[in-house]
Formats: sequence, structure tokens, C-alpha cells
Amino acid sequence: MKSDSIAVDVPAESSSVIKGKAPLLGLARDHTGSGGYKRGLSIFDFLLRLAAIVAALAAAATMGTSDETLPFFTQFLQFEASYDDLPTFQFFVVAIAIVAGYLVLSLPFSVVTIVRPLAVAPRLLLLVLDTAALALDTAAASAAAAIVYLAHNGNTNTNWLPICQQFGDFCQKTSGAVVSAFASVTFLAILVVISGVSLKRP
Amino acid sequence: MKSDSIAVDVPAESSSVIKGKAPLLGLARDHTGSGGYKRGLSIFDFLLRLAAIVAALAAAATMGTSDETLPFFTQFLQFEASYDDLPTFQFFVVAIAIVAGYLVLSLPFSVVTIVRPLAVAPRLLLLVLDTAALALDTAAASAAAAIVYLAHNGNTNTNWLPICQQFGDFCQKTSGAVVSAFASVTFLAILVVISGVSLKRP
Repeated sequence: MKSDSIAVDVPAESSSVIKGKAPLLGLARDHTGSGGYKRGLSIFDFLLRLAAIVAALAAAATMGTSDETLPFFTQFLQFEASYDDLPTFQFFVVAIAIVAGYLVLSLPFSVVTIVRPLAVAPRLLLLVLDTAALALDTAAASAAAAIVYLAHNGNTNTNWLPICQQFGDFCQKTSGAVVSAFASVTFLAILVVISGVSLKRP
Repeated sequence: MKSDSIAVDVPAESSSVIKGKAPLLGLARDHTGSGGYKRGLSIFDFLLRLAAIVAALAAAATMGTSDETLPFFTQFLQFEASYDDLPTFQFFVVAIAIVAGYLVLSLPFSVVTIVRPLAVAPRLLLLVLDTAALALDTAAASAAAAIVYLAHNGNTNTNWLPICQQFGDFCQKTSGAVVSAFASVTFLAILVVISGVSLKRP
């Protein structure tokens, strides 16, 4: 086959004009296409993070203020119940406060993912730290739930008597704190999934 | 500015030859470049999944076989302790068994991510389900940990006496089961992070 060349006639002026527009437009379209839904995810992430903060703070505050003193007392005895009577509840308050603190500190990173929805680094950082926060949050909520269950029902096999007949308010508040903590666990689990979806290639 | 055209001299034969090679090569390099490290991650994911299965099965089996009967007994009484004396331990065995079952079922998906390291769907599915398994696993391990702590130390404020002086073996086995469960929690947390890293754009 005889090698010959093909003359391609490129109009000098118009080519610069075309060059001037098309790539930018092309880039822009791709950018908003996948960037658009990811920006939406990031905004949802930010709102969910706020909700998780409220739930975690409510849980820690409710547990922290759950003290109850019974109205009757004897010469030597006054009956009082408070969260620091049980090590598990102390762990609960500390752990949930740490989770709430972390969530507040993570808000700026969440804003970064709104401004730059395709940025990978902040999103991956949030996923890793949210996973750790999820484990700590779940641990605190579940350990406290086991003790609250025991406080309500006791256990005849181990001769552990229930305490909620005497300390009704205390039990009600600690139960409310546990429910609020599980709400923040749910929000955190969704946040981890959102990070995964945002990281994936469009 | 007078509009005139520029003649671009494209050698007919060689252009087809170039077309024939370069893109493929380019594509191949990109493919193995990011596919390579992701395949490595997927293999690590598979091995970690096996380790998590072993840890979870060991935890459930240890708790399930933790019964202890004390050598002395009276005419009417025989002292026995077993995991189903405490509802939290029953929850532990069921929940950890569910997690172990899920992990076994997830192995084929993990193999798919080894064969097709750039595939997004199986990886995203694993991330979502691993996050749920992480929460359930952590909940079971932490609730049981709270009860094991109580069994060892008791609580004077609530008059809950420790039981481990009498049932030493029972307490040792339940403690071992809790430690094994937290090992599987750690593996699952790493699996969630691996999925996140694998999903991110190269």
C-alpha cells in the first residue's frame, strides 16, 4: 500500500474560537452532572451531622442530670440515685460527649465537601472517623441499654433486684438517654453510607 | 483579520497504526495502575473477612458453651450458671451468630471485588451491609461487656453482688467471648474503611 498523506483543512480563525468554548463547556457539564447529586448528598450529610449532634448532646445531658433523691429518709440514710453510681453510665456520658465533640469538629469538613463535592480526601477522612465514632457511640448506647434493662427487670438467677420501682424518675431519664443515643447511632450509620456513596466513581 | 485555512499534513498509513496501539496501551496502563492496588485491597478484604468470621464464631461458641455447674448441691438445690440465665447474653449469642452468618454470605461478593476490582456495585453493597453488621456486632459485644463487668465487680449502690467468686469458669468463658467479639468488631471497622478506600476515585 503506497503511503500518502491526507491534507486536513482546519480554518485558522474559527478553530481558536471553537477551542475557546467547547472544552470548558464539556468540563462544566461533566462537573455539574456528577458534582450536582454529590453536592446534594453533602448538604444532606451536613444536616444529618447537626441532627446527630443534637441527639448525642441530649443523650449525654439527660444521663448527666438523671439524679433522683427519694423524699423519705431515716436518721442516717437518704436514698439517692445518680448516673455515677454505675460505671457503665459514667462510660456512657464520657463516650457520648466525645462523639458529640467529634461531630462538632467534623462540621467544617462537611462544609468542605459541600463546596468541593468531588474532593476525595475530606470525604475519606470523614468516612474513617465516622466509622470509629459509630463504634464508640454504639458501644456506649448498648452497654447502657443492658444496665437500664437490668434496672427495670432485675435478674432472679443472679439475685440482682430491679431498682426502678424505687427510682422511677432515674430510670425514666436513663432510658430516654439510651433512646437518644441510639438515634445518634442511626444518624452516624447513615453518614458512613453517605460517605461511601459520595466516594464512588460517578 | 483575513480568515485563511491551515493545511495539516496527517500521514495516512501511520495514523491508523498509531490509532491501533496507543489508546489500548494507555487504557491498559490506567487499568492495571489503579486496578492493581484495588485488587490488593480486595484480597486483604477477603482475608480480613475470614478472620472476622473466625472471631465471631469463636465468640458465639464460647458464650454458648459457658455453662458451669458447681460441684456441691443440697437436697433441693444445684448451683448452675449458663448464658441463657441473662437476657443480654442470649442477645449476644443470637446477634453474633447473625453477624457471622452475614460475613459468610458476604464472601462471594468479596471474591467478585477481587475478580473485578473496579466494580462499584458489589463494593458499595459490602460497605452498607458491613456498616450495619458493625453496629450490631458492637452492640452485642458492649452490652455483654457491661454485664460481664457487673458479674466480676458487682455494684454496692444497687446491691447487685458479683457472681464470679462462685462461678469462676462461667465468668472466664463469658469474658473470653466478649474479647473475641471485640476482635470481630475491629476487623469489621477496618473492612468498612477498606470499602471506602476502594470506592474512591483513583
